[in-house]
Order: sequence, then C-alpha cells, then structure tokens
Amino acid sequence: MLNYHFLLDLAIILLSTKVLGIITRKIHMPQVVGALAAGLLLGPAVFNMIHETEFIKQTAEIGVIVLMFTAGLEIDIKELKKCGKSSFIIALFGVLVPLAGGFAVAALFNNGTLVGLDTESLLQNIFLGIILTATSVSITVETLQEMGKLKTRSGTVIIGAALIDDIIGIIVLTFITSSAGSDSNTGFVLLKILLFFAAAAIIGILFFHVFNTYSKRYNEKRRFPIIAFSFCLIIAYAAEHIFGVADIAGAFIAGLVISGSAHTKYIKRRFGILSYLFLSPIFFASIGISVSVDSITGEMIIFSIILLLVAVLSKVLGCGIGAKLCKYSKKESLQVGVGMVARSEVALIVANKGVTLGLLNSLFFTPVIFLVIVTSIAAPILLKLAYGKSGDNQIECTEGFVEEEPFD
Amino acid sequence: MLNYHFLLDLAIILLSTKVLGIITRKIHMPQVVGALAAGLLLGPAVFNMIHETEFIKQTAEIGVIVLMFTAGLEIDIKELKKCGKSSFIIALFGVLVPLAGGFAVAALFNNGTLVGLDTESLLQNIFLGIILTATSVSITVETLQEMGKLKTRSGTVIIGAALIDDIIGIIVLTFITSSAGSDSNTGFVLLKILLFFAAAAIIGILFFHVFNTYSKRYNEKRRFPIIAFSFCLIIAYAAEHIFGVADIAGAFIAGLVISGSAHTKYIKRRFGILSYLFLSPIFFASIGISVSVDSITGEMIIFSIILLLVAVLSKVLGCGIGAKLCKYSKKESLQVGVGMVARSEVALIVANKGVTLGLLNSLFFTPVIFLVIVTSIAAPILLKLAYGKSGDNQIECTEGFVEEEPFD
Repeated sequence: MLNYHFLLDLAIILLSTKVLGIITRKIHMPQVVGALAAGLLLGPAVFNMIHETEFIKQTAEIGVIVLMFTAGLEIDIKELKKCGKSSFIIALFGVLVPLAGGFAVAALFNNGTLVGLDTESLLQNIFLGIILTATSVSITVETLQEMGKLKTRSGTVIIGAALIDDIIGIIVLTFITSSAGSDSNTGFVLLKILLFFAAAAIIGILFFHVFNTYSKRYNEKRRFPIIAFSFCLIIAYAAEHIFGVADIAGAFIAGLVISGSAHTKYIKRRFGILSYLFLSPIFFASIGISVSVDSITGEMIIFSIILLLVAVLSKVLGCGIGAKLCKYSKKESLQVGVGMVARSEVALIVANKGVTLGLLNSLFFTPVIFLVIVTSIAAPILLKLAYGKSGDNQIECTEGFVEEEPFD
Repeated sequence: MLNYHFLLDLAIILLSTKVLGIITRKIHMPQVVGALAAGLLLGPAVFNMIHETEFIKQTAEIGVIVLMFTAGLEIDIKELKKCGKSSFIIALFGVLVPLAGGFAVAALFNNGTLVGLDTESLLQNIFLGIILTATSVSITVETLQEMGKLKTRSGTVIIGAALIDDIIGIIVLTFITSSAGSDSNTGFVLLKILLFFAAAAIIGILFFHVFNTYSKRYNEKRRFPIIAFSFCLIIAYAAEHIFGVADIAGAFIAGLVISGSAHTKYIKRRFGILSYLFLSPIFFASIGISVSVDSITGEMIIFSIILLLVAVLSKVLGCGIGAKLCKYSKKESLQVGVGMVARSEVALIVANKGVTLGLLNSLFFTPVIFLVIVTSIAAPILLKLAYGKSGDNQIECTEGFVEEEPFD
C-alpha cells in the first residue's frame, strides 16, 4: 500500500517556500532567502517536519539539474562574444581570487596549516574555493533594473562577466569532481577530463545542428522542451557514469548547447514553470534537511563569518582588479566588484554536490547557507551604495541576458 | 551515494513516450495510444527496462492527482448549467448502463455466478463497472472539431454529458473506495461519505471565496498555481487519510472548486506544462510496469474482448437511450452514444487505484489497457461513420469546454 504522506509533505513544501518567498519579497529581499528560510524551518534544524526520502532526494536532484540546465540556457554564446574581452578578464579574476580565498580559509580550518597536505584534504580545500566562485547575477540584474542602471557600462559588463564566470566555474568543478572519484592517477584524470570535454563538444555540436534544423522546420513546439530535457538528462547521466564528472556540469553544458537554438525562449519558459511549480521548492526542502543544528559551535560561527568576509572581499577585489585592468574607472570597478558579490542557488548546488562526493564536510554546509542568505540580502544594499546618484550613460547590449527569477 | 540511474530512466521515459506519441499522431491516432505503447515497451511485458522505484511510484501518483485536478478544472459549473437537463440525463444513463455492464462481466468471470456474492467480490465486481463509466471526451472533441461538427446539437450535448459523467463517476468511486477500506459497517461508511462530501462542500465554498477574492486583487499571478496545487494535494491527502476515500476523488473536487475562479485559464496552462513535461510520461511508464505478460492466457483474451464489447455497447446504448429520452433524433442519439465511447487516462487511473486498494485483481489491468487503446483508436472512426455527411445546424455553447490534450 502506498503511504500518502508524501502528498502532505509536498503541499507543506510548496506553501511554505511560497509564503516565505512572498514575505521576503515584500520586505525587498530576494525570494531565494524566503525559500531557504522555509527549507530550514521544515528541516531538523527547527520543526523537523520533512524527512529525507528517495522521492525528495531524487526529485531535488532533478531540480538541481534543471536549474543548472537553465543557467546554461541563459548563455547565448553569440551575444557573449559581443560583450568581449573585458567580461572575460573580469570573470577570470572573479573566479581565481575567490577560489584562492576559499582555499585559504578551508586550509586554515581544515588542517591548521597550509603545507604538507595530502591529496584528499587538498581537494577538499579547493572545493570550498569553488563554492565561492559562483556568482548569482539575478539579484544584481533586478536591483540595477530598479535603479535604471542596467544598461550602463558597468551593468553590461557585470552580466557578461557573471555568465562567463559560470562557465569557468563549471570547468573548475569538472576538474575537481573528476579527480575525486578516481584513484588519483593524475594522468588518467586529465585524460578523462579531456575526453569529457571532447565528447561534450562533438556531441554538443552535432546535437545542436540536428536539433536546430529540426526546430526551425516544425511549428509544433511542444516536443522541443521534451527533447531538450532528455538530452540534458542523458548528458548529466553520462558525465557521472562514464566520466566521473558532476552531473550538474553535464546539465550546464547541455543548456549551453541548446541555448541559441530556434526555440530557446519557449524552452526556457517551460523549464521555468516546471522549476517554480514543482522542482525548486523540493530542492530547497532538501537543502533544509541537510542542515543540522549540532554543527553550530563557536568555531563554526567564527568560520562562517570569516568565510562570508572572504567571499565578499575576494569577489569585490577579484572583479574590481579585472575591471581596473580593462580600463574601467575606480568607481566603475567597485560597482562591477559589488555587482558580483551575491551567491545563490549555484553555490548551494555545488556545496550539496560536494557533500555527496565527500569533498565537503557536511559541517561546512550551514556556513554556505549563511553565506547565500547574507550576500543575497546585502547585495542590493551594497549596489545602491556603489552606484550612488551618478548619471552613467546608458548603452545597449544586455537584452536577452536578463535572467528570470526562478521563484515567484 | 546517489545512484544516478534514475536520470537515464527519466530520459528514456520522456523520449519514448514522446516519440511514440508523435508517431501515433502522425497516423491519426491519439497520442495517448503512443504513450501507452511506450509504457508497455519499457515495462516487463517487452524490454523490461524500467523498474518500479519509490520515485516512479510517487511521481506517478502526483501525476495522476494533477490529471484528475485538471479534469476537475475543466468543469465550469456556471457553463454546465446552461447545457441543461439533456446532458445530465445522458450522463446518468451513460454511467448506469456501463456500470451494470462492467458488473455483469466481472461477476461472470469472477465467480461464475451472479448470485450469492460476499461483500468483497461484490465490491470488486462493481469496481470493474466503475472503470467502464469514465468517458474521455478529448478525442471526440478533436474529431468533431476536425469535421466541423463540434457546435452541432449532438456535439454540444456530448461535451456537457462527458463532464457530468466525470462528476457522477467520481461520486460512485467515492462510495466504493470508502466501502473498501472500512469494516463494512454500512451505516458507518455512509456517514463517512456524507461527512466527506459535507466537508468538501464547506471547505470548497470557503476556499473558493477567499481564493477568488485574493486572485482578483493581485496581478502577480505566479503564486496562484502554487496555492491551487497545495490545496489540491491537501484535499487529496485528507480524502485518503481522514475519510478513506480515493485521493483522486479529492483532487478532482479540488479542481472543481478552483474552476471558475479568476485565473483558471492561467492555472490550467501551468499544470498542462507540468504534466506533459514531467508527470504524465512517468505515469505512463508506471502503467507499463504494472502490466505483466504472464496474465495473457486464452481466458484473459476472451475476457478482454468481451469487456471491450460491453464497454462500447453499454456506452452507445446508455447514452443513446438518454438522448432519445431527451427527444433527440435516432441519428443524433447514435452520434451522442458513439461520442462517449472513448476511454482514456481516467479509466487507467481508476483501474490503477483499484489494484492499489485490492478492489481490482491485477490480472484485469491488461484488459483495461487493451480497452483504452482500442476505444481510443476506434472512437474517431466510429464518429466519422455516425456523423456521415449530414449538415447539422451549428449552435453556440461549447466555447471554454474544449479540453486540451495533455500530451503533445
């Protein structure tokens, strides 16, 4: 006999993420904060109402895959080229500095020393760095839009850089997850990664051409989201199963492949609905389940605060330096840096993956959630300070880049 | 560690139901037939590729709930009143005659006798009758639309009757599922059912007013599908948990409550997408898993054919008699009867529920699938024969009734 309790669980998850999302929205905070708060309330940390089941675990995983797939879909490679070298340089520094910062913090707490590490600790420390690399641009986009600054020089470059940032982050993630699974033979790992990217490129190009040609020929659009979804799932599965690379990297690449095909906008809307109506709330509930209260010790609080500071400063510095190198003014460089501070779903997704792979001590999960909540709240405030009342000249470039908030 | 095989399973399910759906569509058969064929191919009957997991079982159950919820949403009570008494009388006969027919067939095969039945066999035999009551009007609507006969006198009354037919079917289902769970104290069962309908009516009316007032006040529509979904899940859960009534009856009533509220169309579209992109294919796969080849014996084949004949004739007769009583011409009465022949998802859903409740021998599941496939294919052909080349006068009444095909 089927136990029907999961229906009630689902109703509670949907309602609480939505209600808290609406509340945080009302007090001008991102809905992600509300959804996360709902997850925490439902989990063992507070009310202990939702328990992990195979259904929640697997549905959350599909939710994560869809979120990463959508992140890939956001990136229109042709458009990206227009935004040029500046975005790339800013993104590169915006990944490397937080990566180093996160690594340093982890090393400090994980081993108490920066030298003499075994491979496993090394990978674990790098992993904390990777979590810090993922920028969430949706909060920035909304804030800039509200202020009418989205089409300024700095606004445009932020969006381009945040997208490239995702790509670089996924490449780094691929390296690290691939190293984790294997018997740490570096040559073999590199070969696997090389094969993964080669296979992804060949299959991606082939699939894009077939899919795009087929898409253009048919007006009956409803089949395309299904084909895209299946492709995404197969690539995600193959990444894990054949290459030992994180499934989310595969999903992101699948999104990248399909972005720029004829019906991308249509496909994106369908996945947005699937996500907000069903998958994302379950993802947030699963995050809430992962958090245990036992982990909140004095040391953990100190760690959380240091991690937060490093996360904010390393992004501001990294992206700021990148912008300065590209001849942006001091003020603009600061704006760019601040615009990249927010972390959101991707940081959670990567952290979650790390726990699954044994690359992140589950104790570190709570600080990451803290980081996401605080940066999500702080980003709009910092942005408003950084932009002040200056009258930057508006330029055109961003249309089509603007991410839709997946929860509302 | 998470086993990622379910990602591949999901990709296979999505692709195969879609590809076979497109193929059956191409040869002018309903997509349901293709999706069912895909389910059968994936199950133990043919390739044995997909196995039942908690994830598939629970996701399929949510899929079923969403399908029944959508069926309820289709019914606009205000519109229904316009179509009047004829539809009601046709629906009533269209339920009673197949109910009796299904009961007779079951009794014939289950016991070899129509008298001296114990309560359990009695319930089981009635249950087969209930499966035969559920009309699928979407195939009929499409066929009539294609022929330009949708707005004829008979076309209009068919749609009204099919919707009322759903309501009567759900009431009968409520009675039987409620009787099954309890200790067969008839008084207690009747009280439970009475309480269920009273509670549903009170909560439904209250919820509708709050929801509708709230809906009209806010333009931010994205929250409404989530609220509606949660409401549906809670009612479905309460039906099972508190009243011992089938969750699908609860889901249908929840849809009925919300239909006619301000954003019904918007909500319906969102659930359509959730259904075709994720939930329905998994439902069809779960149907495929339920079918075992062992059950195909000589007796089963005879049973399937008799069940099919009874299903078709009882609907044609029942609805035809109803139409004749309402002063429709002989030809029109035949058209109405033939228009109600097709069985589809609801028959499968009810059969599935019967197996779960122990009210349907799982051996009888294969004949029901056979029934759905054959009637789905036969309905358009029979309809074309019944309508011939007559020039019925077109009247206006059906707008807003036309069901959307959930799979395309």
